[in-house]
Amino acid sequence: MIEIRPFEQKDWTATWQIIRPVFRAGETYPFSPDITEKEAHQAWVEMPSATFVAVDGTLEVLGTYYIKPNQPALGAHVCNCGYIVAEKARGKGIASEMCKHSQREALSRGFRAMQYNLVVSTNEGAVRLWKRQGFEVVGTLPKAFRHQRLGLVDAFVMYKQLQT
Amino acid sequence: MIEIRPFEQKDWTATWQIIRPVFRAGETYPFSPDITEKEAHQAWVEMPSATFVAVDGTLEVLGTYYIKPNQPALGAHVCNCGYIVAEKARGKGIASEMCKHSQREALSRGFRAMQYNLVVSTNEGAVRLWKRQGFEVVGTLPKAFRHQRLGLVDAFVMYKQLQT
Repeated sequence: MIEIRPFEQKDWTATWQIIRPVFRAGETYPFSPDITEKEAHQAWVEMPSATFVAVDGTLEVLGTYYIKPNQPALGAHVCNCGYIVAEKARGKGIASEMCKHSQREALSRGFRAMQYNLVVSTNEGAVRLWKRQGFEVVGTLPKAFRHQRLGLVDAFVMYKQLQT
Repeated sequence: MIEIRPFEQKDWTATWQIIRPVFRAGETYPFSPDITEKEAHQAWVEMPSATFVAVDGTLEVLGTYYIKPNQPALGAHVCNCGYIVAEKARGKGIASEMCKHSQREALSRGFRAMQYNLVVSTNEGAVRLWKRQGFEVVGTLPKAFRHQRLGLVDAFVMYKQLQT
């Protein structure tokens, strides 16, 4: 049983444990692999409009996502989200649950569309998952991501209209 | 004769005169039409890596552009630029000159590609100009821009690899 609820400051230690290895790996998010805990808190908690955590029946934090406007005022009806699931909790549908939750959250906040700006092309699981959630690859950015293991790889812009 | 040189603080008044009506119109840039001078200075001068001005033989400022990384660390080899030409100086090739200058500047700063994130589809002159400069429309974002006269319109992601 997964529950998704707003992030509280007491969740930071668990959240940092989840997002740190993903940032350190440098294979899916553009943040520096050497990002500090303070910078990560800024990026994941302070800059976004809201941050959420996914917790299981024992209240352990197993995933997290943020939501924010993707552009200033005249583009602020399109939101951007980022999602990370704890390594040990992958393959259980938590990312899908967070994606669905974020779409409802986006609508309730008045957003009309959701855009992912830099979906790393080699992150095939994520691409498949977002497609299942109704997102389309609307653009390919050649060599736009410096993958820490594979070098320069393409990235996708993915987009979904939530209201038409 | 147009010369393009780095922005200096003494250029701000002239630069603000050029960019203000464009922001106020709300037809090409996502900034709020009500953006304050201070916010505009932050967005155009403080946040970017560098800002430039195009001046004519009488040293009047007729255009301006900024350059900055489009993403954090692992996407920071792709830059983003924004260009604005004074209304009275349009149609003289100043935007093209600034675009060429920005590509040289990008290379000298180590960028490998340039990306425009939100080219308003109704801004046909700009789209044509960037295409002539070798940029491709790599994606279309449905209804991603709230045009102040036309309502929600599509926007393009445009991209050019400067090094392959």
